[in-house]
Amino acid sequence: MYAERLERARARMRDLDVDVLLLSTGADLPYLSGYEAMPLERLTMLVVPADADAVLVIPTLEAPRVVEQPDAFELFPWDETDDPIEIVAGLVAGIDPDARSAAVGDHTWARFVLDLQRALPAIQFRRASDVTGPLRVVKDAAEIAALQAAASVVDDVARVMRDRPFAGRTELEVHRELVERMLEGGHERANFAIVAAGANAASPHHDPSERIIERGDVVLCDFGGTMRGYCSDITRMFVVGDVDPEVRDAYDVLVAAQEAGVQAATVGTSCEAVDAAARAVIADAGFGDYFVHRTGHGIGTEAHEDPYVVAGNRTPLVPGHAFSVEPGIYLPGRFGLRLEDIVVATDAGPERLNRAPRDLAIVG
Amino acid sequence: MYAERLERARARMRDLDVDVLLLSTGADLPYLSGYEAMPLERLTMLVVPADADAVLVIPTLEAPRVVEQPDAFELFPWDETDDPIEIVAGLVAGIDPDARSAAVGDHTWARFVLDLQRALPAIQFRRASDVTGPLRVVKDAAEIAALQAAASVVDDVARVMRDRPFAGRTELEVHRELVERMLEGGHERANFAIVAAGANAASPHHDPSERIIERGDVVLCDFGGTMRGYCSDITRMFVVGDVDPEVRDAYDVLVAAQEAGVQAATVGTSCEAVDAAARAVIADAGFGDYFVHRTGHGIGTEAHEDPYVVAGNRTPLVPGHAFSVEPGIYLPGRFGLRLEDIVVATDAGPERLNRAPRDLAIVG
Repeated sequence: MYAERLERARARMRDLDVDVLLLSTGADLPYLSGYEAMPLERLTMLVVPADADAVLVIPTLEAPRVVEQPDAFELFPWDETDDPIEIVAGLVAGIDPDARSAAVGDHTWARFVLDLQRALPAIQFRRASDVTGPLRVVKDAAEIAALQAAASVVDDVARVMRDRPFAGRTELEVHRELVERMLEGGHERANFAIVAAGANAASPHHDPSERIIERGDVVLCDFGGTMRGYCSDITRMFVVGDVDPEVRDAYDVLVAAQEAGVQAATVGTSCEAVDAAARAVIADAGFGDYFVHRTGHGIGTEAHEDPYVVAGNRTPLVPGHAFSVEPGIYLPGRFGLRLEDIVVATDAGPERLNRAPRDLAIVG
Repeated sequence: MYAERLERARARMRDLDVDVLLLSTGADLPYLSGYEAMPLERLTMLVVPADADAVLVIPTLEAPRVVEQPDAFELFPWDETDDPIEIVAGLVAGIDPDARSAAVGDHTWARFVLDLQRALPAIQFRRASDVTGPLRVVKDAAEIAALQAAASVVDDVARVMRDRPFAGRTELEVHRELVERMLEGGHERANFAIVAAGANAASPHHDPSERIIERGDVVLCDFGGTMRGYCSDITRMFVVGDVDPEVRDAYDVLVAAQEAGVQAATVGTSCEAVDAAARAVIADAGFGDYFVHRTGHGIGTEAHEDPYVVAGNRTPLVPGHAFSVEPGIYLPGRFGLRLEDIVVATDAGPERLNRAPRDLAIVG
């Protein structure tokens, strides 16, 4: 699989006149090699020349973590007193003395990029996603199945939470429960678990705090993680006890907006049209100023990746695009609401991967 | 505090002829502003001119997360359809049209660095750590207290684990227990929790797996997290049931090596001399080829930072340097051992922050 993906990357490198692909931390490396670099000061870098074999430059002490793929790359371990930048630069120059263009992983640390630029002054650097983006953005059947499996786990967590107590617990306590349930459900990693009660939910990326959840609170739970390399991401809303009619009305608008966004997500429709479909429902109800973010983001081996469902993105959806549809309404100082499912564009129409109930969950 | 740290950073910028400091993800931003950027595709960047006020460019939806510091920086929120690179470039050019040198946060994503280079073609980029490193590497009393508090939590976890069952549980189960105990102990975040049983421990950065721990296994536990912004990091060894005499002998060597490293860490001694002191004990016992990494790393707001305790680093220790001393012995296919404490260099000599028992813990 990795050898085949590398060949597709090389074909695209030749189209773009990219001589070498240099991948470190981030999702491109595991996508093309099965290995995820540790985000540490010791450089790991997969060197992929357009027309020669790939080499994984890796700290000696991390080499035992690699599942070797002899048909995809060979290992080049470096010791603590070696200079990995020198090694990578030497590999690039050795393979292709005329190399002029390198594509470097989008999440590679600045210090490594600057060092590589100094070591390879004749080379122009561009983003690796120019090469890998078109490969990664269209998910194949196995990838959709992995996204579905991860979605089913967070669906189960969302369902269980409908019967759990909220009142009297802190946001952080509920946060920890979400993290634990994702791990118990088989996720390797919990990437985030936003729990935002009352006015805190008006901050879309609120950090869970010691704030105690009380009767009457509206609680936003937005959580996701990684399972078998693919990400989950879901947002559901909980209300402790009675629902304020104003919250109910705003939530009804949100449900309609989310449904409009999902239904708009047909093959051939642009990403910005999906955003506009959800946004129009919220704007028509008078909440336009309170929907302060885009409608969604792509998802795959990264929690956020192409395609972004945002004004200005004219990319038409194709079968295999996977993305969130997550409109929100945020009333500063009062409350915030968001509803999120992962959706896949298919020839048969938009398909929701999340199936947990979408109504306001009334909890104790 | 942040205004004062920014002034010290500006003084160093003037020394280095750096016109502007550009900080995004990574530890420099919270060190200088109290705000930690989310590692996402929406750019957050603190723009610190050498001779003008600092501006935090931040996605609108993340702006409510910021604890404002009016004497340190002002906010510049950007909306979903704005271009944050254009905003940052405009700020840099607007403040100082003659700017020629920028220092960019070491962990800033490559895609942002490349975009900034394109938007600011007259500017030379260098690492922000050239500016911030000397500030951050020497910890003040409050920082040492924070490191001590975090160390005490993982000490408690290490102590509790001596009375916990290991046999019959998987590495992942023990990993999760370590994570939970760090969070319960007050850590905001568990950064890692390596649990490596038997031959798995010969891989220094082993990923905890479904491997079931059995009687006779030697189990390496290396764990740490972040509390009030400062990191913990400890390694302790556990043996299930009887100790193999060969393990016992190797561990005795390791304890002596670690002690030698700690005792060598006096003010004025070079980092590489500390490494050499620990390494000599292991080499003298015939295990030199099996100690495959440096002796330690600095620690602070990052789990790994300067000063690195490694051959080639001639930096002399000064009071306030904080770092790990963590020699290891790794026998491929058989077992691995590591022992790690955080140490601070003081005028009164090296001070261990970790005080959990260092002997091999015999567990059930």
